[in-house]
Amino acid sequence: MKKIAIIGASGATGFELLKLALKEHIDPQQLLLIASEKSIGKTLYCDGHTFELQPISSIHDNHLEVIFLAAGSSVSKFVKAHYKDISALVIDLASTFRQEIDTPLIIPEINGDDVDLKKHRWICSPNCVTTLTLLVLAPLFKINAPKKVLLSTYQAASGAGYKAMEELKNETNAFLKDEKYHHIAFNDPYAFNLFTHNSPFVTDDDTDEEMKIRLESKKILKNEDLKISSTCVRVPTLRAHAISAYVEFSEPMTKDVIYETLANAPGIKQFEDFGRNLFATPQMAACKDEVYYGRIRKDSLDDQGFWFWIVGDQLLKGASLNAWQIYKHLRRHETFHSYAGSTGS
Amino acid sequence: MKKIAIIGASGATGFELLKLALKEHIDPQQLLLIASEKSIGKTLYCDGHTFELQPISSIHDNHLEVIFLAAGSSVSKFVKAHYKDISALVIDLASTFRQEIDTPLIIPEINGDDVDLKKHRWICSPNCVTTLTLLVLAPLFKINAPKKVLLSTYQAASGAGYKAMEELKNETNAFLKDEKYHHIAFNDPYAFNLFTHNSPFVTDDDTDEEMKIRLESKKILKNEDLKISSTCVRVPTLRAHAISAYVEFSEPMTKDVIYETLANAPGIKQFEDFGRNLFATPQMAACKDEVYYGRIRKDSLDDQGFWFWIVGDQLLKGASLNAWQIYKHLRRHETFHSYAGSTGS
Repeated sequence: MKKIAIIGASGATGFELLKLALKEHIDPQQLLLIASEKSIGKTLYCDGHTFELQPISSIHDNHLEVIFLAAGSSVSKFVKAHYKDISALVIDLASTFRQEIDTPLIIPEINGDDVDLKKHRWICSPNCVTTLTLLVLAPLFKINAPKKVLLSTYQAASGAGYKAMEELKNETNAFLKDEKYHHIAFNDPYAFNLFTHNSPFVTDDDTDEEMKIRLESKKILKNEDLKISSTCVRVPTLRAHAISAYVEFSEPMTKDVIYETLANAPGIKQFEDFGRNLFATPQMAACKDEVYYGRIRKDSLDDQGFWFWIVGDQLLKGASLNAWQIYKHLRRHETFHSYAGSTGS
Repeated sequence: MKKIAIIGASGATGFELLKLALKEHIDPQQLLLIASEKSIGKTLYCDGHTFELQPISSIHDNHLEVIFLAAGSSVSKFVKAHYKDISALVIDLASTFRQEIDTPLIIPEINGDDVDLKKHRWICSPNCVTTLTLLVLAPLFKINAPKKVLLSTYQAASGAGYKAMEELKNETNAFLKDEKYHHIAFNDPYAFNLFTHNSPFVTDDDTDEEMKIRLESKKILKNEDLKISSTCVRVPTLRAHAISAYVEFSEPMTKDVIYETLANAPGIKQFEDFGRNLFATPQMAACKDEVYYGRIRKDSLDDQGFWFWIVGDQLLKGASLNAWQIYKHLRRHETFHSYAGSTGS
């Protein structure tokens, strides 16, 4: 039986991948869970099953169908450099290789067919904000090209992993008790606070996160001229991101056309109750597969400008679920089993 | 001695006004603190002084120089309807009368000279987001008119008063202890959550908050054609608002010109440390008089589009401090004491 390896299984995204696999009735015996040196030998519990965490070298000794890389860029680089002989399909959630020309960057609902299993062995899953935003906007861009897209994000702790989620809770608890707390996950205090995204600056102006959104959106939509710009902000929520998006379309647009188009789009769900003033929130979107949208408004300034409110689980569709869906999407291909193979050293 | 009345003194904004008055060495005897029926007779402590809360009818029996209205729209309406004979200057923090043609809406640094004490007895202080945003943007609009202004806000609990601030803390505490909590301040859960602004819808698309920002900005800048649009969001922070602003200027602009212009503008302070990835946060702006700005970036899409990050204390410059500064600004006029008078019934 060819195995499914999850590298980074004890992290926030890796653990969600494990949960997705079990939810889809993958035989636990088929799962190879890999963690960093310090976790080797430890046991992971999930949905009534027990797993022993394995070292990364174990991907050599197993017949693998697919490897999920959910341990960050340095581990993805390590695997690419040291395991060239592995013929398993790699689905990489880290950002390092997303801009490589021959590496597909996939949101299955949008560009799932860009993968050619004959030549693509390494497939990337995009940045969380990129995935959540494009899932809602891409169907609209097919009928009315965007002139300009501006995003302000409200990003949850989960984007920085379990450590950040725990720190948000612990630091908030200390704040409420008026106790000192030495925060380490971020430069800024996080309890009842927010700050512009902590990723490093890659230009004089843009953080890595903001640049990823720009470059990845262009690649996924195959639109080098796409004008998309963002301000990314970390807010004290736990695991779903919200995005305030403003789109200027190239042609006049109506709310009706937008709502009709999105009603038929996959993976997203309208949620709005104007009467009770209820729209999607991170708490309602947490642990949900769908990405929520609503409050679509003409900005009253011109016929081409519209606001969108988008909320989705960062760990699910923003990361693990999208990666898992890439796998499911490719598995449907007749040729999948001829290409997703194994060598073993 | 003519008195200074603060109506709503036991509320979050009113109490900040009291603190400002004491900080500026106003004789405590000169302060008349007024609260709602249920608080009458109660005692308020502030900076070592004790005040007995008075009923609203007491404004009839005192010689008043100025009345600060910090108790919401219904109280402002009540005062306007029932105390026509009071000649004291009124500085109104509620929104009801902000759009009346003969009522100046004032941010002293921007349009302080729009008040003519000969005819204006009732002066309004603007919505918090409007004040914080314009304080940074208005100096730029003088040299390069805006084509479009788009705001996404990150608004603190304080905008909804003490009740909401307490609820945020209590609900978060219950969440951390895994206890049930019956939230009442907002429709949505607030612990580690955020939601689009809770103010009622005034059009099919816009909440009252979003409409205030539009109409008040037009009035303050005397620009009926100003294109300003926003998405207002309540986030789980305590008392300072953050604003992600995107401005398209009508002519090409440079970062240098923006920074130079703002360096000389009153009431605002640059804060940015790109090396350590530190920018203004609500926690650092809380309890500060200045409004912070930074991360000013050309959006790389065109020469006219720039992003701004603005953070300011909602209770101070967003409310009480601006109102107090209106009073101070007018008091400097030679004619002030002839016009800010009293009648007594």
